[in-house]
Amino acid sequence: MKYYEDLVVGTLTRSSRSYKVTREEVMEFATKYDPQPFHLDDDAAAKTHFGQLSASGWHTASITMRLMVDTWKDMEPTASLGSPGIDELRWVKPVFPGDELSVEIELISKRRMNSRRDMGLSKSKQTVYNQHGDIVMTMLGNGLIQVRNPEVDGE
Amino acid sequence: MKYYEDLVVGTLTRSSRSYKVTREEVMEFATKYDPQPFHLDDDAAAKTHFGQLSASGWHTASITMRLMVDTWKDMEPTASLGSPGIDELRWVKPVFPGDELSVEIELISKRRMNSRRDMGLSKSKQTVYNQHGDIVMTMLGNGLIQVRNPEVDGE
Repeated sequence: MKYYEDLVVGTLTRSSRSYKVTREEVMEFATKYDPQPFHLDDDAAAKTHFGQLSASGWHTASITMRLMVDTWKDMEPTASLGSPGIDELRWVKPVFPGDELSVEIELISKRRMNSRRDMGLSKSKQTVYNQHGDIVMTMLGNGLIQVRNPEVDGE
Repeated sequence: MKYYEDLVVGTLTRSSRSYKVTREEVMEFATKYDPQPFHLDDDAAAKTHFGQLSASGWHTASITMRLMVDTWKDMEPTASLGSPGIDELRWVKPVFPGDELSVEIELISKRRMNSRRDMGLSKSKQTVYNQHGDIVMTMLGNGLIQVRNPEVDGE
């Protein structure tokens, strides 16, 4: 298990898998959570700046989360305690049915929490690519990570 | 149809519906997109700072999107063209199975785009509440809105 103390700022991790986005899943997610015409209807989408049916941005973000969890599992489980939030989530390009997504995670900074000695905060940049190498999404994610030895002071 | 010109900065909109979060849906979403133990397993969740099984933050964000789309449909359709991104997404409190969510949307600012005369950018603050009136999530969302009369100059 990887704890707060094991995180090395500057580490760049490429997701262990990629995620194929199917048309069926795009429609299913959009039907449930983002039923706007350009996520559900080919003709309506063709008339917009997207040009064709595209995935909800929240779907892309959710797929990114899945890629990250799988990466932790495939490499070494991280003692993650969830996230207090995201800064600067950017949907750079549309994601289309048939696209295959992967993510690159760079650890930007980390610090111990003042209020909870058993937790640390990490900040990492996630860059999501499609199969052409185009960036489709970026975000700055904040993570809560368990500290292995809370009684030991440290940055 | 509500276009860019019709948006009034300062307008506060309460979602037209609420969304009941079921345990089944929490597990289904987490299984697909965020398979961390505290979103899937009661015992594992009880051992974390969440205290009990909670919804993925991406699930809460996706439900918020659904509440917004339904509100646009129920009130007056908005000529939305998607979103370039979100600033400061914050998961303030956990969302638990059985919770009922609603959202308040405040239009903070708007401006015409320089690069596309037929589009405007809006910035709005979304505050998501549970059935107790507790804030569970906030975000600053950026929206692209169609301009009704692109040939007319304006802010």
